[in-house]
Amino acid sequence: MARDTARQGTAPRNYPKGQRRRAQIIEAAFTAFGQVGYRNASMVQLAAACGVSRAGLLHHFPTKESLLEAVLEERERQDDEHFFQSGAVTQDGLEYFASMIRLVAHNQANPLIVSLFAVLSSEATAADHPARPYFVTRYERARRQMQSAVDDLARRGLLRPHVQAPGLAADLIAFIDGLQIQWLLSPDAIDMPGHLRTLLRSLVRVELA
Amino acid sequence: MARDTARQGTAPRNYPKGQRRRAQIIEAAFTAFGQVGYRNASMVQLAAACGVSRAGLLHHFPTKESLLEAVLEERERQDDEHFFQSGAVTQDGLEYFASMIRLVAHNQANPLIVSLFAVLSSEATAADHPARPYFVTRYERARRQMQSAVDDLARRGLLRPHVQAPGLAADLIAFIDGLQIQWLLSPDAIDMPGHLRTLLRSLVRVELA
Repeated sequence: MARDTARQGTAPRNYPKGQRRRAQIIEAAFTAFGQVGYRNASMVQLAAACGVSRAGLLHHFPTKESLLEAVLEERERQDDEHFFQSGAVTQDGLEYFASMIRLVAHNQANPLIVSLFAVLSSEATAADHPARPYFVTRYERARRQMQSAVDDLARRGLLRPHVQAPGLAADLIAFIDGLQIQWLLSPDAIDMPGHLRTLLRSLVRVELA
Repeated sequence: MARDTARQGTAPRNYPKGQRRRAQIIEAAFTAFGQVGYRNASMVQLAAACGVSRAGLLHHFPTKESLLEAVLEERERQDDEHFFQSGAVTQDGLEYFASMIRLVAHNQANPLIVSLFAVLSSEATAADHPARPYFVTRYERARRQMQSAVDDLARRGLLRPHVQAPGLAADLIAFIDGLQIQWLLSPDAIDMPGHLRTLLRSLVRVELA
Protein backbone atom coordinates (compact mmCIF):
# COMPACT_ATOMS: atom_id res chain seq x y z
CA MET A 1 0.00 0.00 0.00
CA ALA A 2 2.87 2.35 0.82
CA ARG A 3 4.15 1.75 -2.71
CA ASP A 4 0.86 2.76 -4.24
CA THR A 5 0.76 5.93 -2.19
CA ALA A 6 4.32 6.82 -3.16
CA ARG A 7 3.47 6.30 -6.80
CA GLN A 8 0.31 8.37 -6.78
CA GLY A 9 2.07 11.22 -8.57
CA THR A 10 2.50 9.31 -11.79
CA ALA A 11 -0.21 6.66 -11.40
CA PRO A 12 -3.33 7.91 -9.59
CA ARG A 13 -5.57 5.19 -8.15
CA ASN A 14 -8.54 6.04 -10.29
CA TYR A 15 -6.64 5.22 -13.50
CA PRO A 16 -7.66 2.03 -15.24
CA LYS A 17 -5.41 -0.84 -14.14
CA GLY A 18 -3.59 -1.03 -17.50
CA GLN A 19 -2.75 2.67 -17.41
CA ARG A 20 -1.44 2.37 -13.87
CA ARG A 21 0.72 -0.61 -14.81
CA ARG A 22 2.07 1.26 -17.85
CA ALA A 23 2.99 4.28 -15.70
CA GLN A 24 4.66 1.95 -13.20
CA ILE A 25 6.81 0.36 -15.92
CA ILE A 26 7.82 3.78 -17.25
CA GLU A 27 8.78 4.84 -13.73
CA ALA A 28 10.93 1.73 -13.19
CA ALA A 29 12.63 2.22 -16.57
CA PHE A 30 13.18 5.91 -15.81
CA THR A 31 15.18 4.90 -12.74
CA ALA A 32 17.00 1.97 -14.38
CA PHE A 33 18.04 3.91 -17.50
CA GLY A 34 19.40 6.70 -15.30
CA GLN A 35 21.34 4.28 -13.14
CA VAL A 36 22.82 1.76 -15.57
CA GLY A 37 22.01 3.31 -18.95
CA TYR A 38 19.58 2.22 -21.63
CA ARG A 39 21.85 -0.36 -23.24
CA ASN A 40 22.66 -2.06 -20.00
CA ALA A 41 19.11 -2.10 -18.58
CA SER A 42 17.44 -5.48 -18.84
CA MET A 43 13.80 -5.91 -19.86
CA VAL A 44 13.66 -9.07 -17.71
CA GLN A 45 14.86 -7.18 -14.62
CA LEU A 46 12.46 -4.31 -15.36
CA ALA A 47 9.54 -6.74 -15.58
CA ALA A 48 10.59 -8.33 -12.28
CA ALA A 49 10.93 -4.91 -10.61
CA CYS A 50 7.34 -4.12 -11.61
CA GLY A 51 6.01 -7.54 -10.68
CA VAL A 52 4.88 -8.34 -14.21
CA SER A 53 5.82 -11.20 -16.49
CA ARG A 54 7.97 -10.59 -19.54
CA ALA A 55 4.83 -11.08 -21.64
CA GLY A 56 3.04 -8.51 -19.49
CA LEU A 57 5.82 -6.02 -20.09
CA LEU A 58 5.83 -6.70 -23.83
CA HIS A 59 2.05 -6.13 -23.91
CA HIS A 60 2.68 -2.50 -22.91
CA PHE A 61 6.04 -2.05 -24.62
CA PRO A 62 6.65 -4.51 -27.47
CA THR A 63 10.26 -3.34 -27.84
CA LYS A 64 12.88 -1.81 -25.59
CA GLU A 65 12.96 1.15 -28.01
CA SER A 66 9.26 1.82 -27.43
CA LEU A 67 9.91 1.92 -23.68
CA LEU A 68 12.81 4.32 -24.23
CA GLU A 69 10.52 6.56 -26.23
CA ALA A 70 7.91 6.56 -23.46
CA VAL A 71 10.57 7.39 -20.84
CA LEU A 72 11.89 10.32 -22.91
CA GLU A 73 8.32 11.59 -23.36
CA GLU A 74 7.69 11.34 -19.63
CA ARG A 75 10.88 13.27 -18.87
CA GLU A 76 9.92 15.97 -21.34
CA ARG A 77 6.43 16.18 -19.82
CA GLN A 78 7.92 16.70 -16.35
CA ASP A 79 10.34 19.32 -17.65
CA ASP A 80 7.62 21.27 -19.44
CA GLU A 81 5.36 21.07 -16.42
CA HIS A 82 7.97 22.81 -14.28
CA PHE A 83 9.46 25.08 -16.87
CA PHE A 84 6.18 26.49 -18.10
CA GLN A 85 4.34 26.34 -14.78
CA SER A 86 3.62 30.06 -15.05
CA GLY A 87 1.70 29.65 -18.30
CA ALA A 88 2.61 29.76 -21.98
CA VAL A 89 6.13 29.85 -23.40
CA THR A 90 7.49 33.30 -22.67
CA GLN A 91 9.01 35.68 -25.22
CA ASP A 92 10.61 37.63 -22.39
CA GLY A 93 14.31 36.84 -21.90
CA LEU A 94 14.31 37.78 -18.22
CA GLU A 95 11.30 35.58 -17.47
CA TYR A 96 12.85 32.77 -19.50
CA PHE A 97 16.06 32.70 -17.47
CA ALA A 98 14.21 33.16 -14.17
CA SER A 99 12.19 30.05 -15.13
CA MET A 100 15.42 28.28 -16.04
CA ILE A 101 16.84 28.90 -12.56
CA ARG A 102 13.62 27.50 -11.05
CA LEU A 103 13.81 24.43 -13.30
CA VAL A 104 17.43 23.77 -12.29
CA ALA A 105 16.45 24.16 -8.61
CA HIS A 106 13.59 21.70 -9.15
CA ASN A 107 15.94 19.21 -10.82
CA GLN A 108 18.44 19.53 -7.98
CA ALA A 109 15.71 18.18 -5.69
CA ASN A 110 15.13 15.26 -8.10
CA PRO A 111 18.37 13.35 -8.77
CA LEU A 112 16.56 10.71 -10.87
CA ILE A 113 15.61 13.33 -13.47
CA VAL A 114 19.19 14.58 -13.59
CA SER A 115 20.74 11.08 -13.80
CA LEU A 116 18.41 9.99 -16.55
CA PHE A 117 19.27 12.99 -18.68
CA ALA A 118 23.03 12.88 -18.04
CA VAL A 119 23.36 9.15 -18.70
CA LEU A 120 21.05 8.93 -21.73
CA SER A 121 22.33 12.07 -23.48
CA SER A 122 25.95 10.90 -23.37
CA GLU A 123 25.08 7.27 -24.20
CA ALA A 124 23.08 8.59 -27.16
CA THR A 125 26.14 10.23 -28.72
CA ALA A 126 27.04 6.78 -30.16
CA ALA A 127 26.26 6.60 -33.88
CA ASP A 128 24.00 3.56 -33.51
CA HIS A 129 22.09 4.57 -30.36
CA PRO A 130 18.29 4.61 -30.80
CA ALA A 131 17.96 7.88 -28.82
CA ARG A 132 20.56 9.74 -30.91
CA PRO A 133 18.03 11.36 -33.31
CA TYR A 134 15.89 12.40 -30.33
CA PHE A 135 18.80 14.15 -28.61
CA VAL A 136 20.09 15.78 -31.82
CA THR A 137 16.62 17.30 -32.38
CA ARG A 138 16.12 18.15 -28.71
CA TYR A 139 19.39 20.11 -28.52
CA GLU A 140 18.64 21.93 -31.77
CA ARG A 141 15.28 22.98 -30.36
CA ALA A 142 16.74 23.88 -26.94
CA ARG A 143 19.43 26.05 -28.56
CA ARG A 144 16.83 27.79 -30.75
CA GLN A 145 14.46 28.49 -27.85
CA MET A 146 17.14 29.71 -25.46
CA GLN A 147 18.78 31.78 -28.21
CA SER A 148 15.47 33.64 -28.67
CA ALA A 149 15.58 34.54 -24.98
CA VAL A 150 19.24 35.65 -25.30
CA ASP A 151 18.41 37.72 -28.39
CA ASP A 152 15.55 39.38 -26.51
CA LEU A 153 18.02 40.42 -23.76
CA ALA A 154 20.47 41.68 -26.41
CA ARG A 155 17.78 43.78 -28.15
CA ARG A 156 16.82 45.36 -24.83
CA GLY A 157 20.47 46.15 -24.05
CA LEU A 158 20.43 43.85 -21.02
CA LEU A 159 23.58 41.87 -21.85
CA ARG A 160 26.77 43.19 -20.31
CA PRO A 161 29.34 44.79 -22.62
CA HIS A 162 31.64 42.23 -24.36
CA VAL A 163 29.03 39.46 -24.06
CA GLN A 164 28.42 38.02 -27.52
CA ALA A 165 24.80 37.01 -28.02
CA PRO A 166 25.36 34.58 -30.96
CA GLY A 167 26.09 31.10 -29.65
CA LEU A 168 25.45 32.02 -26.01
CA ALA A 169 22.50 29.61 -25.79
CA ALA A 170 24.75 26.65 -26.67
CA ASP A 171 27.19 27.83 -23.98
CA LEU A 172 24.55 28.07 -21.26
CA ILE A 173 22.96 24.73 -22.14
CA ALA A 174 26.45 23.17 -22.06
CA PHE A 175 27.10 24.76 -18.68
CA ILE A 176 23.84 23.42 -17.20
CA ASP A 177 24.46 19.92 -18.59
CA GLY A 178 28.06 19.77 -17.43
CA LEU A 179 27.20 21.04 -13.97
CA GLN A 180 24.82 18.10 -13.56
CA ILE A 181 27.74 15.67 -13.80
CA GLN A 182 29.73 17.54 -11.14
CA TRP A 183 26.63 17.74 -8.93
CA LEU A 184 25.81 14.02 -9.31
CA LEU A 185 29.40 13.19 -8.32
CA SER A 186 29.69 15.75 -5.47
CA PRO A 187 26.23 16.93 -4.43
CA ASP A 188 27.58 18.74 -1.36
CA ALA A 189 30.19 20.70 -3.32
CA ILE A 190 27.95 22.03 -6.10
CA ASP A 191 24.78 24.13 -5.84
CA MET A 192 23.40 24.12 -9.40
CA PRO A 193 20.86 26.98 -9.23
CA GLY A 194 23.39 29.07 -7.27
CA HIS A 195 26.05 28.58 -9.97
CA LEU A 196 23.54 29.41 -12.73
CA ARG A 197 22.41 32.60 -10.97
CA THR A 198 26.02 33.75 -10.41
CA LEU A 199 27.06 33.03 -14.00
CA LEU A 200 24.00 34.87 -15.35
CA ARG A 201 24.91 37.86 -13.14
CA SER A 202 28.24 38.11 -14.98
CA LEU A 203 26.43 38.10 -18.36
CA VAL A 204 23.17 39.99 -17.75
CA ARG A 205 22.86 43.56 -16.40
CA VAL A 206 19.81 43.04 -14.19
CA GLU A 207 19.16 40.64 -11.34
CA LEU A 208 16.84 37.77 -12.26
CA ALA A 209 13.73 37.19 -10.17
CA MET B 1 50.03 -4.99 -41.64
CA ALA B 2 47.86 -1.91 -42.15
CA ARG B 3 46.53 -2.47 -38.62
CA ASP B 4 50.01 -2.46 -37.16
CA THR B 5 50.91 0.71 -38.99
CA ALA B 6 47.76 2.44 -37.85
CA ARG B 7 48.50 1.44 -34.28
CA GLN B 8 52.10 2.60 -34.28
CA GLY B 9 51.20 5.70 -32.25
CA THR B 10 50.39 3.78 -29.11
CA ALA B 11 52.30 0.54 -29.76
CA PRO B 12 55.65 1.08 -31.49
CA ARG B 13 57.16 -1.99 -33.16
CA ASN B 14 60.26 -2.03 -31.02
CA TYR B 15 58.23 -2.63 -27.84
CA PRO B 16 58.44 -6.12 -26.40
CA LYS B 17 55.52 -8.19 -27.70
CA GLY B 18 53.68 -8.23 -24.34
CA GLN B 19 53.83 -4.46 -24.05
CA ARG B 20 52.53 -4.05 -27.59
CA ARG B 21 49.65 -6.43 -26.91
CA ARG B 22 48.81 -4.60 -23.69
CA ALA B 23 48.72 -1.25 -25.49
CA GLN B 24 46.54 -2.78 -28.20
CA ILE B 25 44.02 -4.04 -25.62
CA ILE B 26 43.92 -0.64 -23.93
CA GLU B 27 43.30 1.01 -27.29
CA ALA B 28 40.43 -1.35 -28.13
CA ALA B 29 38.88 -0.82 -24.68
CA PHE B 30 39.31 2.97 -25.03
CA THR B 31 37.15 2.84 -28.17
CA ALA B 32 34.62 0.33 -26.82
CA PHE B 33 34.07 2.13 -23.49
CA GLY B 34 33.52 5.39 -25.36
CA GLN B 35 31.05 3.80 -27.75
CA VAL B 36 28.93 1.51 -25.58
CA GLY B 37 30.07 2.42 -22.06
CA TYR B 38 32.10 0.45 -19.54
CA ARG B 39 29.22 -1.61 -18.20
CA ASN B 40 28.04 -2.68 -21.60
CA ALA B 41 31.47 -3.48 -23.07
CA SER B 42 32.19 -7.20 -23.18
CA MET B 43 35.58 -8.67 -22.27
CA VAL B 44 34.91 -11.49 -24.75
CA GLN B 45 34.30 -9.04 -27.60
CA LEU B 46 37.35 -7.00 -26.59
CA ALA B 47 39.52 -10.10 -26.69
CA ALA B 48 38.15 -11.00 -30.12
CA ALA B 49 38.73 -7.45 -31.42
CA CYS B 50 42.40 -7.73 -30.38
CA GLY B 51 42.81 -11.26 -31.72
CA VAL B 52 43.63 -12.69 -28.28
CA SER B 53 41.95 -15.44 -26.32
CA ARG B 54 40.00 -14.63 -23.20
CA ALA B 55 42.88 -16.14 -21.21
CA GLY B 56 45.31 -13.92 -23.10
CA LEU B 57 43.25 -10.85 -22.20
CA LEU B 58 43.03 -11.92 -18.55
CA HIS B 59 46.81 -12.36 -18.47
CA HIS B 60 47.18 -8.60 -19.06
CA PHE B 61 44.01 -7.49 -17.25
CA PRO B 62 42.76 -10.00 -14.66
CA THR B 63 39.56 -7.98 -14.11
CA LYS B 64 37.45 -5.58 -16.15
CA GLU B 65 38.12 -2.99 -13.41
CA SER B 66 41.88 -3.25 -13.99
CA LEU B 67 41.33 -2.57 -17.69
CA LEU B 68 39.14 0.43 -16.83
CA GLU B 69 41.91 1.77 -14.63
CA ALA B 70 44.46 1.39 -17.43
CA VAL B 71 42.14 3.16 -19.90
CA LEU B 72 41.60 6.09 -17.51
CA GLU B 73 45.37 6.34 -16.97
CA GLU B 74 45.96 6.34 -20.72
CA ARG B 75 43.40 9.10 -21.23
CA GLU B 76 45.00 11.17 -18.49
CA ARG B 77 48.43 10.64 -20.02
CA GLN B 78 47.20 11.89 -23.40
CA ASP B 79 45.51 14.91 -21.77
CA ASP B 80 48.61 15.86 -19.82
CA GLU B 81 50.80 15.42 -22.89
CA HIS B 82 48.77 18.00 -24.80
CA PHE B 83 47.89 20.30 -21.95
CA PHE B 84 51.40 20.66 -20.64
CA GLN B 85 53.18 20.43 -23.99
CA SER B 86 54.81 23.81 -23.35
CA GLY B 87 56.55 22.59 -20.20
CA ALA B 88 55.68 22.53 -16.50
CA VAL B 89 52.25 23.34 -15.03
CA THR B 90 51.81 27.08 -15.34
CA GLN B 91 50.92 29.46 -12.52
CA ASP B 92 49.91 32.05 -15.09
CA GLY B 93 46.14 32.30 -15.61
CA LEU B 94 46.42 33.59 -19.17
CA GLU B 95 48.78 30.81 -20.18
CA TYR B 96 46.53 28.27 -18.45
CA PHE B 97 43.43 29.26 -20.44
CA ALA B 98 45.38 29.58 -23.69
CA SER B 99 46.52 25.96 -23.10
CA MET B 100 42.94 24.99 -22.33
CA ILE B 101 41.75 26.35 -25.71
CA ARG B 102 44.53 24.33 -27.40
CA LEU B 103 43.53 21.18 -25.50
CA VAL B 104 39.87 21.58 -26.52
CA ALA B 105 40.97 22.12 -30.15
CA HIS B 106 43.09 18.95 -29.92
CA ASN B 107 40.16 16.98 -28.50
CA GLN B 108 37.87 18.25 -31.26
CA ALA B 109 40.19 16.50 -33.71
CA ASN B 110 39.95 13.28 -31.64
CA PRO B 111 36.32 12.22 -31.14
CA LEU B 112 37.35 8.99 -29.37
CA ILE B 113 38.92 10.97 -26.51
CA VAL B 114 35.79 13.09 -26.20
CA SER B 115 33.39 10.12 -26.35
CA LEU B 116 35.31 8.16 -23.77
CA PHE B 117 35.22 11.02 -21.32
CA ALA B 118 31.56 11.97 -21.91
CA VAL B 119 30.28 8.40 -21.65
CA LEU B 120 32.40 7.26 -18.69
CA SER B 121 31.95 10.41 -16.59
CA SER B 122 28.16 10.24 -16.76
CA GLU B 123 28.05 6.45 -16.36
CA ALA B 124 30.29 6.88 -13.29
CA THR B 125 27.72 9.08 -11.53
CA ALA B 126 25.95 5.85 -10.45
CA ALA B 127 26.61 5.06 -6.79
CA ASP B 128 28.01 1.58 -7.51
CA HIS B 129 30.16 2.40 -10.57
CA PRO B 130 33.84 1.41 -10.19
CA ALA B 131 35.01 4.69 -11.80
CA ARG B 132 32.96 6.92 -9.48
CA PRO B 133 35.79 7.55 -6.96
CA TYR B 134 38.16 8.32 -9.83
CA PHE B 135 35.83 10.95 -11.31
CA VAL B 136 34.97 12.50 -7.93
CA THR B 137 38.71 13.00 -7.25
CA ARG B 138 39.46 14.08 -10.81
CA TYR B 139 36.81 16.83 -10.75
CA GLU B 140 37.95 18.04 -7.33
CA ARG B 141 41.49 18.34 -8.67
CA ALA B 142 40.37 19.94 -11.94
CA ARG B 143 38.30 22.54 -10.07
CA ARG B 144 41.24 23.29 -7.73
CA GLN B 145 43.74 23.67 -10.58
CA MET B 146 41.50 25.80 -12.77
CA GLN B 147 40.41 27.92 -9.80
CA SER B 148 44.10 28.80 -9.18
CA ALA B 149 44.26 30.09 -12.75
CA VAL B 150 41.00 32.07 -12.27
CA ASP B 151 42.30 33.50 -8.99
CA ASP B 152 45.52 34.56 -10.72
CA LEU B 153 43.45 36.50 -13.29
CA ALA B 154 41.36 38.05 -10.49
CA ARG B 155 44.49 39.18 -8.58
CA ARG B 156 45.88 40.81 -11.72
CA GLY B 157 42.57 42.61 -12.36
CA LEU B 158 42.05 40.70 -15.62
CA LEU B 159 38.49 39.53 -14.97
CA ARG B 160 35.76 41.78 -16.33
CA PRO B 161 33.65 43.72 -13.82
CA HIS B 162 30.73 41.68 -12.34
CA VAL B 163 32.54 38.40 -12.97
CA GLN B 164 32.72 36.48 -9.68
CA ALA B 165 35.96 34.50 -9.33
CA PRO B 166 34.75 32.01 -6.69
CA GLY B 167 33.15 29.01 -8.35
CA LEU B 168 34.06 30.10 -11.87
CA ALA B 169 36.30 27.05 -12.39
CA ALA B 170 33.34 24.70 -11.81
CA ASP B 171 31.32 26.76 -14.32
CA LEU B 172 33.98 26.60 -17.03
CA ILE B 173 34.64 22.87 -16.54
CA ALA B 174 30.88 22.30 -16.74
CA PHE B 175 30.70 24.35 -19.92
CA ILE B 176 33.53 22.39 -21.58
CA ASP B 177 32.00 19.03 -20.58
CA GLY B 178 28.51 19.95 -21.69
CA LEU B 179 29.71 21.31 -25.00
CA GLN B 180 31.27 17.92 -25.77
CA ILE B 181 27.81 16.32 -25.75
CA GLN B 182 26.40 18.91 -28.17
CA TRP B 183 29.48 18.55 -30.38
CA LEU B 184 29.31 14.72 -30.42
CA LEU B 185 25.64 14.97 -31.44
CA SER B 186 26.06 17.80 -33.98
CA PRO B 187 29.73 18.16 -34.93
CA ASP B 188 28.93 20.57 -37.78
CA ALA B 189 26.89 22.94 -35.58
CA ILE B 190 29.35 23.31 -32.70
CA ASP B 191 32.96 24.54 -32.77
CA MET B 192 34.23 23.80 -29.27
CA PRO B 193 37.44 25.90 -29.16
CA GLY B 194 35.55 28.76 -30.84
CA HIS B 195 32.83 28.69 -28.17
CA LEU B 196 35.42 28.55 -25.38
CA ARG B 197 37.36 31.50 -26.80
CA THR B 198 34.18 33.59 -27.18
CA LEU B 199 32.93 32.79 -23.68
CA LEU B 200 36.35 33.63 -22.17
CA ARG B 201 36.26 36.97 -24.05
CA SER B 202 33.10 37.87 -22.13
CA LEU B 203 34.79 37.03 -18.81
CA VAL B 204 38.45 38.06 -19.27
CA ARG B 205 39.69 41.55 -20.22
CA VAL B 206 42.52 40.50 -22.52
CA GLU B 207 42.58 38.35 -25.63
CA LEU B 208 44.06 34.89 -25.05
CA ALA B 209 46.97 33.77 -27.23
